[in-house]
Amino acid sequence: MSYKNFPMVSRVIFGRGSFNQLNDIVAPKRLNTKSPFIFLVDDVFKNNTWLTSRINLSYDDKIIYISAKEEPKTSQVDELVESIILDTKERPSGIIGIGGGTLLDLAKAVSIMLTNQGKTENYQGWDLVKNPAIYHVGVPTISGTGAEVSRTTVLTGPIRKLGINSDYTPFDQVILDPELTKDVPKEQWFFTGMDCYIHCIESLNGTYLNTFSQSYGEMSLELCKDIFFGESLSKEEAEDKLMMASWHGGMSIVYSQVGVAHALSYGLSYLLGTKHGIGNCIVFNHLEEFYPEGVKLFKAMKKKHNIELPQGICADLSDSDFDTMINISLSLEPLWENAVGKNWKNTVTRKKLKELYKKM
Amino acid sequence: MSYKNFPMVSRVIFGRGSFNQLNDIVAPKRLNTKSPFIFLVDDVFKNNTWLTSRINLSYDDKIIYISAKEEPKTSQVDELVESIILDTKERPSGIIGIGGGTLLDLAKAVSIMLTNQGKTENYQGWDLVKNPAIYHVGVPTISGTGAEVSRTTVLTGPIRKLGINSDYTPFDQVILDPELTKDVPKEQWFFTGMDCYIHCIESLNGTYLNTFSQSYGEMSLELCKDIFFGESLSKEEAEDKLMMASWHGGMSIVYSQVGVAHALSYGLSYLLGTKHGIGNCIVFNHLEEFYPEGVKLFKAMKKKHNIELPQGICADLSDSDFDTMINISLSLEPLWENAVGKNWKNTVTRKKLKELYKKM
Repeated sequence: MSYKNFPMVSRVIFGRGSFNQLNDIVAPKRLNTKSPFIFLVDDVFKNNTWLTSRINLSYDDKIIYISAKEEPKTSQVDELVESIILDTKERPSGIIGIGGGTLLDLAKAVSIMLTNQGKTENYQGWDLVKNPAIYHVGVPTISGTGAEVSRTTVLTGPIRKLGINSDYTPFDQVILDPELTKDVPKEQWFFTGMDCYIHCIESLNGTYLNTFSQSYGEMSLELCKDIFFGESLSKEEAEDKLMMASWHGGMSIVYSQVGVAHALSYGLSYLLGTKHGIGNCIVFNHLEEFYPEGVKLFKAMKKKHNIELPQGICADLSDSDFDTMINISLSLEPLWENAVGKNWKNTVTRKKLKELYKKM
Repeated sequence: MSYKNFPMVSRVIFGRGSFNQLNDIVAPKRLNTKSPFIFLVDDVFKNNTWLTSRINLSYDDKIIYISAKEEPKTSQVDELVESIILDTKERPSGIIGIGGGTLLDLAKAVSIMLTNQGKTENYQGWDLVKNPAIYHVGVPTISGTGAEVSRTTVLTGPIRKLGINSDYTPFDQVILDPELTKDVPKEQWFFTGMDCYIHCIESLNGTYLNTFSQSYGEMSLELCKDIFFGESLSKEEAEDKLMMASWHGGMSIVYSQVGVAHALSYGLSYLLGTKHGIGNCIVFNHLEEFYPEGVKLFKAMKKKHNIELPQGICADLSDSDFDTMINISLSLEPLWENAVGKNWKNTVTRKKLKELYKKM
């Protein structure tokens, strides 16, 4: 038996207002005046001077605003890398991603593709990256995805939705400033927070679980319960705790895997472009068979926060559409093996997946 | 307000038997055939082929067995560094520490002092290290100290017991193999485990606490309670959980600090050479005033495991001895500030510390 040797985020800073330290943190990493820092920022912060006025641009440094309305794509990474190469005199000193999972994953992928040849889609998979990425920093502004701590960057490509899993993917620096999450709209807060909750349920109920993953998963799950089902937290406490829950939830997956909800929601994202957080919720709502207690609590939390899920998103799909989603889902073998065990193919049939998708 | 930007261990591997991967993990880090790996190994493992036969020595690689009966000293680091420089053709490719906190701290300190001029004692303090350390790996064989994850290496010098706190101190690689702890004698298991428990109590009850430290501390504390006060764990489960408790307990101190037990036990170690684990227990046993609930549970755990603490270790000390211990203890200002608050000097008097020491 061989165990994964997990590469951790190199540095982490935590605290309300720690974002103010961003400039001081990156400054020593500037290679030279021709080698800029590129800030990839969620475009919800465009014209938000409370945040952007704290980014000091020097020399050729640049902010690129990016919409997170759609899931990140390999073609989008290719375009970003091309435009950065065209616009900069020398290879950038660093990429700083500021936003949710979409922006964090784009920052990771761009930093990898600036030093690796060819198309991004060729690196979707496990350990295909040859060269170290350039310095990259993650600043989450919404909590739950675990993208700030993971060794993957999940992208939709022409033939699959799959991460670039590599030792070079994790951030060199993460800034955890819970204050940056203060204006997240309620539904998005819930859906992205549930991504974290679902990570915990899938990790803790998976066959891959070991004590490392269990201790992180239980800690994260307790925090999630406190945040989404408790009564007594202030807004600030809830923001702080959800940021840590996301971090620990991400760590929990290091030695385990996600499971059924992720395997099915990747199919929805690929075909329908469903965003990851809401997609997970739409799927998880129908997974009593796999995670009875987890789904029960999920429904209670959904009710408590008056969250309505879209209904019938698969109502008008053709058989070929279902096949596409089922193919994507079944290709994620480690997720199924973690969820159901080595013999998962005996019970996880195309028919069963189609029935599940039809409920959504 | 400025927050610490914490450097994490670069890579971690967890699992029973993961020690078997040591050779494969370090091999790519060999600089050349003249640049050996030096293994610093606790001498309890001398002639223990179950462990040592799994260390492949190539070229000029060498095992140095070191006794952990005494706390590690700055002079010991100086001697080790000198002998390594004399014995090797080129600067080593890496230092691998295999043992408890003493061996881990020695490995960290030696790896720093191989690239930094002068005496080790000159680097005791905060951020005094100029040059990156050489590649260093930590393999704990007993759980509790948190040395595997911390950014310090605590050493007794000619004028103080204090850590080399620096960004270069944390390990580049940690191997967490709980199986390596299977033969730890019961008392040592308890005393070192209580180091972790006390980290949690001091962190969770400190004024420096934030949500980052709290989440790690609570996780670690739950694991400690399960291990030392629960009923249902197998030996293997308890080993696995204590290894994770130590890790999380160490992470909890990142944004907080230790407290009264550590501040007083450093005095004992400095004057009497008391080992850290048992020293903490001797002190903590008398700290109801500072940590009422924590001490109550400690006493219950001590009783459950039939552990006897030495009595009257300060009985024959002179006034000048007490002064020495009190000076060491009071010099650890961040520990007192964390434990008691900004105005700690109002209540933490020399008289009070002398009374406390006299009880021990």
